[in-house]
Amino acid sequence: MELTKKRLAQIVFDHNDKASRTFDLVLLALIFGSVLVAVLDSVGELHDVYGDTFYILELLFTFLFTIEYILRIWLTSKTFRYVTSFFGIVDLLAILPVYLSFFVVNIQLLTVVRALRLLRVIRILKLGRYLSEADFIKESLKASMAKIQIFLFTVLTVVLIMGTLMYLVEGPAAGFTSIPRGMYWAIVTLTTVGFGDITPETPLGQFIASLIMLLGYAIIAVPTGIVSSEMAKRRKPEEIIHTKACHSCGEEGLGIHDLYCRHCGAELDKIR
Amino acid sequence: MELTKKRLAQIVFDHNDKASRTFDLVLLALIFGSVLVAVLDSVGELHDVYGDTFYILELLFTFLFTIEYILRIWLTSKTFRYVTSFFGIVDLLAILPVYLSFFVVNIQLLTVVRALRLLRVIRILKLGRYLSEADFIKESLKASMAKIQIFLFTVLTVVLIMGTLMYLVEGPAAGFTSIPRGMYWAIVTLTTVGFGDITPETPLGQFIASLIMLLGYAIIAVPTGIVSSEMAKRRKPEEIIHTKACHSCGEEGLGIHDLYCRHCGAELDKIR
Amino acid sequence: MELTKKRLAQIVFDHNDKASRTFDLVLLALIFGSVLVAVLDSVGELHDVYGDTFYILELLFTFLFTIEYILRIWLTSKTFRYVTSFFGIVDLLAILPVYLSFFVVNIQLLTVVRALRLLRVIRILKLGRYLSEADFIKESLKASMAKIQIFLFTVLTVVLIMGTLMYLVEGPAAGFTSIPRGMYWAIVTLTTVGFGDITPETPLGQFIASLIMLLGYAIIAVPTGIVSSEMAKRRKPEEIIHTKACHSCGEEGLGIHDLYCRHCGAELDKIR
Amino acid sequence: MELTKKRLAQIVFDHNDKASRTFDLVLLALIFGSVLVAVLDSVGELHDVYGDTFYILELLFTFLFTIEYILRIWLTSKTFRYVTSFFGIVDLLAILPVYLSFFVVNIQLLTVVRALRLLRVIRILKLGRYLSEADFIKESLKASMAKIQIFLFTVLTVVLIMGTLMYLVEGPAAGFTSIPRGMYWAIVTLTTVGFGDITPETPLGQFIASLIMLLGYAIIAVPTGIVSSEMAKRRKPEEIIHTKACHSCGEEGLGIHDLYCRHCGAELDKIR
Repeated sequence: MELTKKRLAQIVFDHNDKASRTFDLVLLALIFGSVLVAVLDSVGELHDVYGDTFYILELLFTFLFTIEYILRIWLTSKTFRYVTSFFGIVDLLAILPVYLSFFVVNIQLLTVVRALRLLRVIRILKLGRYLSEADFIKESLKASMAKIQIFLFTVLTVVLIMGTLMYLVEGPAAGFTSIPRGMYWAIVTLTTVGFGDITPETPLGQFIASLIMLLGYAIIAVPTGIVSSEMAKRRKPEEIIHTKACHSCGEEGLGIHDLYCRHCGAELDKIR
Repeated sequence: MELTKKRLAQIVFDHNDKASRTFDLVLLALIFGSVLVAVLDSVGELHDVYGDTFYILELLFTFLFTIEYILRIWLTSKTFRYVTSFFGIVDLLAILPVYLSFFVVNIQLLTVVRALRLLRVIRILKLGRYLSEADFIKESLKASMAKIQIFLFTVLTVVLIMGTLMYLVEGPAAGFTSIPRGMYWAIVTLTTVGFGDITPETPLGQFIASLIMLLGYAIIAVPTGIVSSEMAKRRKPEEIIHTKACHSCGEEGLGIHDLYCRHCGAELDKIR
Repeated sequence: MELTKKRLAQIVFDHNDKASRTFDLVLLALIFGSVLVAVLDSVGELHDVYGDTFYILELLFTFLFTIEYILRIWLTSKTFRYVTSFFGIVDLLAILPVYLSFFVVNIQLLTVVRALRLLRVIRILKLGRYLSEADFIKESLKASMAKIQIFLFTVLTVVLIMGTLMYLVEGPAAGFTSIPRGMYWAIVTLTTVGFGDITPETPLGQFIASLIMLLGYAIIAVPTGIVSSEMAKRRKPEEIIHTKACHSCGEEGLGIHDLYCRHCGAELDKIR
Repeated sequence: MELTKKRLAQIVFDHNDKASRTFDLVLLALIFGSVLVAVLDSVGELHDVYGDTFYILELLFTFLFTIEYILRIWLTSKTFRYVTSFFGIVDLLAILPVYLSFFVVNIQLLTVVRALRLLRVIRILKLGRYLSEADFIKESLKASMAKIQIFLFTVLTVVLIMGTLMYLVEGPAAGFTSIPRGMYWAIVTLTTVGFGDITPETPLGQFIASLIMLLGYAIIAVPTGIVSSEMAKRRKPEEIIHTKACHSCGEEGLGIHDLYCRHCGAELDKIR
């Protein structure tokens, strides 16, 4: 099969034949490799020994991602739509900071951006059966949203009142130096995390803390109940949903039988 | 539209046209602003720098809430019923302590009361779809109440027996200085909060602690199961429930088609 | 109504008319009072000040429980069956240690036994709607028992293997001085209690700990799912189950229309 | 009944008559005894006193397990298939390290392997009603696998981004010395374990930590909801599933009416 521009677009945007799947796997490996290098580079001992290697690898990854970005821009017929889409911005953010760091040295911002590269994995995951399952979770959460909002508002009110109460009862001696710190403690306790960096020391404070904990124990049941009952109501989708991508603007996750792109309106290829 | 007393009552009490919604939003902003100032004022560094500004803002908020309170008293025809209703007392509590603090200086009590102002938000939330969802959660919890009471009694019995046991096994050396402290530790452990301010040190104590933890792990399933199954049984209400308020006594959350107030018996306006 | 022996038995054993309910409430108050005194007496400061008062109250409670015990023995026609029943032994354990302490001074054992008095509350709770709800929880748990046993065995295997692994990886320096301590840590971690008295310090140890935590996060879903689905399957009993007690042996929780006692076979009173 | 080779194979491989059940129980006791000795031997004080006894017991257990291993090899007609099967390797691993330790002294590796002996219990548990219940849990988990994979990927992305963020916000002073340590902290927090060995100290860090905790609180509902709804969908198997083992290769867990072994293809005995 000849490597025409159209064939190349199929490889880059689709996930339905061998060549395009290989492209996806290589991209996946590059993304994980890039993130792994960023993580390892933050470890002092490793940075001292392998710092230079990590830097060269980082430049290599950035170079490859830049080629991929240029390829996507060239292959899409509606460039502006791709550049301003969610994934277009993520793709740009994945490479831009490295080039900026040549002029303005800000290692810290760079590190966060490299972690954000993981978001690019979502594009590749937008295929096969994962999509339908992710949709299932997303829809269950969306349907429960109003209930969860009320629940969160209730939790925040409890946190504010309890945090204020503990600030007054325990005071600075036990670490409750302000209401925000009291609220931080209330969240740590209500979510059953319980770091133990701030703990009540007076009998009254411990009594109020016990009430908060039992309350937390009781209300942990509520969000679980909401999501469980929502999920039980829905039927699990059994079939695998195949997807294709638009070759004009790069929009992902289109239905396999869709004729036109929902993002730019371009006519879509038929899947063989 | 002329600003008659009747029109003003619609703006203050109802949530169904543009003017009354604007009134709600302004009130919401004032409440959150007031609470935010109270929270920030408790932080030592901020109090030192902005203490005076916070105090002036506090006076301003109190002044506006006072106007609102007088407005509500003037607009309701059954003043006594409003003043003695739940929201009437909350509205009074939101302003009274500030005036009292001019004579009796008790900053601490004032702080808690300012946190309680958040309760006033509930009045405004009593509208639209949130009401039906909140009712759903409330009814699911109410229906599970008898089961949850038994569950809490069981938990308290376990806490008492385990707290006594640990007090005897570990003793004051490990921080278990009394049965109440042992019970505090048992609650911290059973709810999986685990501060770590008191921990068993003897092998026997650690063995008993392990049993408590596995027990906690097993019984955390019970309240979740109760609420989940209760929620799964009920149908989720789909339609938005519109509400109106009584212009005579200020009672909130009345059905849109109710003809008489359930709190004071006054005839209600028809909603256009 | 004359206070015959038969009438007295109704008051002591039944929960269906005014006099017997008053008896229940007084008994409930005595039990909670007795437990409260035991709890407060363990607090050093309170013991120093009110120690003598607590001791006199304790003697008073014991005296009243002794009268109740003698009354029950006298009223039951099948004394031996009552004395050897579960509640017969609990009733005896509630008073015996105090009398023993006159001869052998062992304050510690006494304290635990006083906490166990709370078990006597169960007898009184064996009435009205609580019974049916408690049965509901109990049956849901019993039906899930085989699944929960497998689950606990899996958890224990994970705890053993992880505890051994951490003992080898971290060693005594980080507090993992033996496999049992490693297992204690694994339970603390897997149940998400997380005291923080023992924590991994090496990168490898922290990596293994992360795996255990994610595992714990995943398997916390299993017991909850088991109990939830079990509860959803059962129908909630709506009606209140009335019960009566046997006047011959004191057996509680008999059906309101039962003709003979399931424990001793005596003919039962008809409930008016 | 004569002790022919065939009869011996029934005793060792099957779980359906008295002799084979006795064999299972003895084996169970030996496995638990062996693991218990390994656990106790790791406690310094016990090792000092009973070290020699533990060593002799260990040799005894190893000797008995060796006999069992040889017996299984002799009884199976397809020896190679048994030796290379999962349980064949576990059986060998249970004894080999002890013999190796005579030549190469590596106490540590030995300890882990002794803990792994617990895996041998699974073979015996492959009988009666436990099998059907274990299958129920396993199938519910397998059916939820795709959803759980997406969930875990989401959790890992959150962990990476939050760990990086906290590393930048808090820095080495508060214990966040590298991104991996930040990720370790994020996992400790998101799973609500909350050791407290690393805690945020700056207000901004505590604010981000609060968000992570509330997030953790919200998403703990997701895996529970997935497994609950999956379990509710399935019917609980009521009948006990009987199993038999292949006498040729030792494969366990075969259906009671199976005619040929799924592992080696040998014809199976009929169960009387």
